[in-house]
Amino acid sequence: MQLIPNGRIWIDTDKGSFLGYGRIELLEKIQETGSLRKAAMEMKMSYQQAWNFIKQMNESVSEPLVITQRGGKNGGSTTLSETGLLAIETFKKYNEAFQLFIQSQSIQL
Amino acid sequence: MQLIPNGRIWIDTDKGSFLGYGRIELLEKIQETGSLRKAAMEMKMSYQQAWNFIKQMNESVSEPLVITQRGGKNGGSTTLSETGLLAIETFKKYNEAFQLFIQSQSIQL
Repeated sequence: MQLIPNGRIWIDTDKGSFLGYGRIELLEKIQETGSLRKAAMEMKMSYQQAWNFIKQMNESVSEPLVITQRGGKNGGSTTLSETGLLAIETFKKYNEAFQLFIQSQSIQL
Repeated sequence: MQLIPNGRIWIDTDKGSFLGYGRIELLEKIQETGSLRKAAMEMKMSYQQAWNFIKQMNESVSEPLVITQRGGKNGGSTTLSETGLLAIETFKKYNEAFQLFIQSQSIQL
Protein backbone atom coordinates (compact mmCIF):
# COMPACT_ATOMS: atom_id res chain seq x y z
CA MET A 1 0.00 0.00 0.00
CA GLN A 2 1.19 3.49 -0.83
CA LEU A 3 2.38 5.65 2.08
CA ILE A 4 1.48 9.30 1.64
CA PRO A 5 3.37 12.02 3.53
CA ASN A 6 0.87 14.58 4.78
CA GLY A 7 0.59 17.45 7.28
CA ARG A 8 -0.58 20.96 7.89
CA ILE A 9 1.02 24.27 8.76
CA TRP A 10 0.10 27.39 10.68
CA ILE A 11 1.72 30.54 12.04
CA ASP A 12 1.91 31.38 15.74
CA THR A 13 3.02 34.38 17.74
CA ASP A 14 4.59 34.01 21.18
CA LYS A 15 1.06 34.60 22.55
CA GLY A 16 -0.68 31.82 20.61
CA SER A 17 -2.33 31.14 17.25
CA PHE A 18 -2.06 33.74 14.53
CA LEU A 19 -2.93 32.26 11.11
CA GLY A 20 -4.06 28.88 9.79
CA TYR A 21 -6.08 27.53 6.87
CA GLY A 22 -9.43 28.45 8.46
CA ARG A 23 -8.43 32.03 9.26
CA ILE A 24 -7.05 32.52 5.76
CA GLU A 25 -10.40 31.36 4.37
CA LEU A 26 -12.17 33.82 6.69
CA LEU A 27 -9.92 36.69 5.52
CA GLU A 28 -10.54 35.75 1.88
CA LYS A 29 -14.30 35.69 2.42
CA ILE A 30 -14.17 39.11 4.09
CA GLN A 31 -12.26 40.38 1.06
CA GLU A 32 -14.86 38.81 -1.30
CA THR A 33 -17.99 39.95 0.53
CA GLY A 34 -16.87 43.17 2.26
CA SER A 35 -18.78 41.93 5.30
CA LEU A 36 -17.75 40.09 8.43
CA ARG A 37 -21.33 38.90 8.92
CA LYS A 38 -21.52 37.36 5.43
CA ALA A 39 -18.00 35.90 5.74
CA ALA A 40 -18.91 34.29 9.07
CA MET A 41 -22.13 32.87 7.58
CA GLU A 42 -20.26 31.36 4.64
CA MET A 43 -17.78 29.80 7.08
CA LYS A 44 -20.70 28.45 9.16
CA MET A 45 -19.35 30.15 12.25
CA SER A 46 -21.04 32.64 14.53
CA TYR A 47 -20.40 36.35 14.09
CA GLN A 48 -18.91 36.38 17.59
CA GLN A 49 -16.49 33.56 16.78
CA ALA A 50 -15.38 35.27 13.56
CA TRP A 51 -14.95 38.57 15.41
CA ASN A 52 -12.85 36.88 18.08
CA PHE A 53 -10.53 35.46 15.42
CA ILE A 54 -10.21 38.87 13.78
CA LYS A 55 -9.58 40.56 17.12
CA GLN A 56 -6.82 38.08 17.98
CA MET A 57 -5.22 38.50 14.53
CA ASN A 58 -5.42 42.29 14.68
CA GLU A 59 -3.78 42.33 18.10
CA SER A 60 -0.94 40.03 16.98
CA VAL A 61 0.76 42.47 14.64
CA SER A 62 1.43 46.20 14.64
CA GLU A 63 -1.10 46.98 11.87
CA PRO A 64 -4.61 45.46 11.94
CA LEU A 65 -5.36 42.92 9.20
CA VAL A 66 -9.05 43.78 9.05
CA ILE A 67 -10.58 47.25 9.12
CA THR A 68 -14.20 47.76 10.11
CA GLN A 69 -15.99 50.98 9.21
CA ARG A 70 -19.24 51.44 11.05
CA GLY A 71 -22.29 53.34 9.79
CA GLY A 72 -22.65 55.15 6.46
CA LYS A 73 -25.53 54.63 4.05
CA ASN A 74 -24.52 50.99 3.39
CA GLY A 75 -24.41 50.16 7.11
CA GLY A 76 -20.64 49.96 7.31
CA SER A 77 -18.11 47.67 5.70
CA THR A 78 -15.28 45.37 6.61
CA THR A 79 -12.18 45.27 4.43
CA LEU A 80 -8.65 43.92 4.51
CA SER A 81 -5.77 46.30 5.11
CA GLU A 82 -2.51 46.07 3.15
CA THR A 83 -1.22 44.00 6.08
CA GLY A 84 -4.24 41.70 5.75
CA LEU A 85 -3.57 41.17 2.03
CA LEU A 86 0.12 40.59 2.78
CA ALA A 87 -0.80 38.07 5.50
CA ILE A 88 -2.78 36.00 2.97
CA GLU A 89 0.08 36.16 0.46
CA THR A 90 2.68 35.25 3.11
CA PHE A 91 0.66 32.29 4.39
CA LYS A 92 0.07 31.01 0.85
CA LYS A 93 3.78 31.16 0.05
CA TYR A 94 4.55 29.24 3.24
CA ASN A 95 1.89 26.67 2.36
CA GLU A 96 3.16 26.31 -1.23
CA ALA A 97 6.69 25.71 0.08
CA PHE A 98 5.24 23.13 2.50
CA GLN A 99 3.34 21.31 -0.27
CA LEU A 100 6.58 21.14 -2.30
CA PHE A 101 8.40 19.84 0.79
CA ILE A 102 5.77 17.12 1.29
CA GLN A 103 5.89 16.09 -2.37
CA SER A 104 9.68 15.81 -2.15
CA GLN A 105 9.43 13.20 0.63
CA SER A 106 9.57 9.55 -0.30
CA ILE A 107 8.11 7.37 2.45
CA GLN A 108 8.71 3.63 2.20
CA LEU A 109 8.87 0.78 4.67
CA MET B 1 5.70 40.59 17.52
CA GLN B 2 7.60 37.58 16.24
CA LEU B 3 5.76 35.32 13.78
CA ILE B 4 6.63 31.67 14.24
CA PRO B 5 6.10 29.16 11.41
CA ASN B 6 4.64 25.97 12.88
CA GLY B 7 2.87 22.80 11.79
CA ARG B 8 2.64 19.06 12.13
CA ILE B 9 3.07 16.07 9.87
CA TRP B 10 1.66 12.58 9.57
CA ILE B 11 1.62 9.67 7.12
CA ASP B 12 -1.55 8.38 5.45
CA THR B 13 -2.37 5.42 3.27
CA ASP B 14 -5.07 5.62 0.60
CA LYS B 15 -7.41 4.12 3.24
CA GLY B 16 -6.79 6.72 5.96
CA SER B 17 -4.41 7.51 8.82
CA PHE B 18 -1.27 5.44 9.20
CA LEU B 19 1.27 7.18 11.47
CA GLY B 20 1.39 10.41 13.48
CA TYR B 21 3.11 11.71 16.62
CA GLY B 22 0.71 9.88 18.96
CA ARG B 23 1.05 6.51 17.24
CA ILE B 24 4.85 6.83 17.21
CA GLU B 25 4.74 7.46 20.95
CA LEU B 26 2.54 4.38 21.35
CA LEU B 27 4.97 2.24 19.32
CA GLU B 28 7.90 3.53 21.37
CA LYS B 29 6.14 2.73 24.63
CA ILE B 30 5.36 -0.78 23.40
CA GLN B 31 9.05 -1.19 22.59
CA GLU B 32 10.01 0.11 26.06
CA THR B 33 7.52 -1.90 28.09
CA GLY B 34 6.98 -5.03 25.97
CA SER B 35 3.29 -4.65 26.78
CA LEU B 36 0.37 -3.11 24.93
CA ARG B 37 -1.53 -2.78 28.21
CA LYS B 38 1.29 -0.83 29.88
CA ALA B 39 1.89 1.27 26.76
CA ALA B 40 -1.81 2.17 26.60
CA MET B 41 -1.83 3.09 30.31
CA GLU B 42 1.20 5.36 29.89
CA MET B 43 -0.53 7.03 26.95
CA LYS B 44 -3.69 7.43 29.05
CA MET B 45 -5.73 5.62 26.42
CA SER B 46 -7.88 2.53 26.77
CA TYR B 47 -6.47 -0.86 25.81
CA GLN B 48 -9.20 -1.08 23.16
CA GLN B 49 -8.22 2.26 21.64
CA ALA B 50 -4.54 1.30 21.56
CA TRP B 51 -5.39 -2.05 20.02
CA ASN B 52 -7.51 -0.36 17.34
CA PHE B 53 -4.56 1.88 16.40
CA ILE B 54 -2.24 -1.12 16.22
CA LYS B 55 -4.75 -3.09 14.16
CA GLN B 56 -5.12 -0.24 11.67
CA MET B 57 -1.34 0.17 11.41
CA ASN B 58 -0.76 -3.56 11.00
CA GLU B 59 -3.34 -3.74 8.22
CA SER B 60 -1.84 -0.77 6.36
CA VAL B 61 1.40 -2.43 5.32
CA SER B 62 2.38 -5.91 4.16
CA GLU B 63 4.24 -6.79 7.40
CA PRO B 64 2.68 -6.06 10.82
CA LEU B 65 4.42 -3.36 12.88
CA VAL B 66 3.50 -4.96 16.20
CA ILE B 67 3.63 -8.64 17.07
CA THR B 68 1.61 -10.03 19.95
CA GLN B 69 2.49 -13.39 21.47
CA ARG B 70 -0.22 -14.77 23.70
CA GLY B 71 0.27 -17.06 26.68
CA GLY B 72 3.57 -18.42 27.99
CA LYS B 73 4.68 -18.18 31.59
CA ASN B 74 4.92 -14.36 31.45
CA GLY B 75 1.39 -14.02 30.10
CA GLY B 76 2.44 -13.10 26.58
CA SER B 77 4.31 -10.13 25.19
CA THR B 78 3.97 -7.43 22.59
CA THR B 79 6.99 -6.40 20.56
CA LEU B 80 7.83 -4.36 17.49
CA SER B 81 8.73 -6.14 14.28
CA GLU B 82 11.58 -4.97 12.04
CA THR B 83 8.90 -3.11 10.09
CA GLY B 84 7.71 -1.45 13.31
CA LEU B 85 11.23 -0.27 14.14
CA LEU B 86 11.67 0.94 10.55
CA ALA B 87 8.33 2.80 10.76
CA ILE B 88 9.56 4.75 13.82
CA GLU B 89 12.86 5.57 12.08
CA THR B 90 11.12 6.60 8.85
CA PHE B 91 8.65 8.87 10.66
CA LYS B 92 11.43 10.48 12.68
CA LYS B 93 13.44 11.23 9.54
CA TYR B 94 10.36 12.79 7.95
CA ASN B 95 9.76 14.84 11.09
CA GLU B 96 13.39 15.96 11.29
CA ALA B 97 13.25 17.10 7.67
CA PHE B 98 10.00 18.93 8.47
CA GLN B 99 11.53 20.70 11.50
CA LEU B 100 14.44 21.84 9.30
CA PHE B 101 11.95 23.04 6.68
CA ILE B 102 10.03 25.04 9.30
CA GLN B 103 13.21 26.59 10.69
CA SER B 104 14.23 27.63 7.17
CA GLN B 105 11.05 29.69 6.76
CA SER B 106 11.18 33.40 7.48
CA ILE B 107 7.71 34.80 8.12
CA GLN B 108 7.35 38.57 8.21
CA LEU B 109 4.53 41.02 7.58
